[in-house]
Amino acid sequence: MSNLYVALTHYPVVDKRGDIITSAVTNLDLHDISRAVKTYGVKSFYVVTPLKDQQSLVQKIISHWTHGAGAVYNPARRSALELIKVKDTIADVAADIKDIENVDPKTVVTCARRYPSSTGYKKFRDILKSDSPHLLIFGTAWGLAEAFIAEADYILEPILGPADYNHLSVRSAAAIILDRLLSA
Amino acid sequence: MSNLYVALTHYPVVDKRGDIITSAVTNLDLHDISRAVKTYGVKSFYVVTPLKDQQSLVQKIISHWTHGAGAVYNPARRSALELIKVKDTIADVAADIKDIENVDPKTVVTCARRYPSSTGYKKFRDILKSDSPHLLIFGTAWGLAEAFIAEADYILEPILGPADYNHLSVRSAAAIILDRLLSA
Repeated sequence: MSNLYVALTHYPVVDKRGDIITSAVTNLDLHDISRAVKTYGVKSFYVVTPLKDQQSLVQKIISHWTHGAGAVYNPARRSALELIKVKDTIADVAADIKDIENVDPKTVVTCARRYPSSTGYKKFRDILKSDSPHLLIFGTAWGLAEAFIAEADYILEPILGPADYNHLSVRSAAAIILDRLLSA
Repeated sequence: MSNLYVALTHYPVVDKRGDIITSAVTNLDLHDISRAVKTYGVKSFYVVTPLKDQQSLVQKIISHWTHGAGAVYNPARRSALELIKVKDTIADVAADIKDIENVDPKTVVTCARRYPSSTGYKKFRDILKSDSPHLLIFGTAWGLAEAFIAEADYILEPILGPADYNHLSVRSAAAIILDRLLSA
C-alpha cells in the first residue's frame, strides 16, 4: 500500500470566469471518490470546505451510510464512506497528516492545464513507492485557484485522450488518476 | 481515433440479491460518461432503457444542455451530451451501429468478476487498433445479468487496485476503462 492521502476541496477554486469561489458539495463526489479511494488503498479521503452548513451536510451523508439505514443496506458503501474526514482548510488536512505521520506531507495538485514543471504519471508512480506521505488534492468547480496550484510540491500532467476535449468531471479525473498511480 | 461505441444499459441488470431488474437512470451517469466518451474520442454514447418515461427524462436532460439554457451556459457540456443516443435495447444499439458501419459490432462487456475467458486491457487495446467496430457495454445497478454477459464477444477483466475492494461506481469504472483502452 502506498502512503497516499486524497483531498477534495471546495475552496479556493474558480468559477467559469476564473473568479475564486467556495463551491457547493456534490453528494456523488463523496460516494464515487470514496469508493475509488477504497479500491486503490488510499489512507483517508478529506473533504474540505470552510462552510459549516456544508460540513454538516457531509457529516449527515456519511452518517446515513456508516451508522444509519444505509450501513445495513450496503456495507460496501459503508467501508468506503468511513474513510472520509471533513476539514476547514487544506492546511488543517496537512496538520492532520503530520499528526499521523510525524512529517509534513508533500502536496500534489491536478490541473487541466500543462505547466513546464508538470510531473508525469509514471514518474509520480515511482515517487509514491517511497514511504513518505503525499497528499493528492482535487479541486471542484472549474478547478483549483492558480495561487494555490503554484504552492504545491508537484503538479500532475493533465489527463489527455486522443480527442481535443479536456472537461472530465472531478469524479472521473480522480478515478483515472488513482488508477494510473496505484493500479496493480 | 478508434472505432469504439459505448452503451450504458439499465436492463438486463441485477439488484443486490441477483434478481434481474430495470434500473432507473442517474443524471450524473449521463454527464460523467458522455464527458469521458468525448475525451477519449468514442463515436457515440448509447443510453439504453426500455421504459418510455425514463427515455423522456434522458431526452429532457440532453435537450437542456444541447438546446436549452445549459447550451449557452456551458458549451463544453453540450458537445459531450450531444453524443448520447437513446435506445430501447442493446439489439437496437447494435442495429444502429450496423447501419453506420455496414457490419455488426463486436460486443465487449465489463464485470466486477473475473472469468476464465476474460480479456486483459493491453490485449483489448491492441484489438481496438483494427478498424472494425466494437461496442463496449456498461451495466448499472449491481451489474449486467449473467446470461447477457455470456453472449458477449469479449469480457474485460475486473478493475483491481492493491486493496481487496471491488465496488467502483459505473461512472468511475467507465472513466478508468476508457483511459486504459484509449489514453494517448
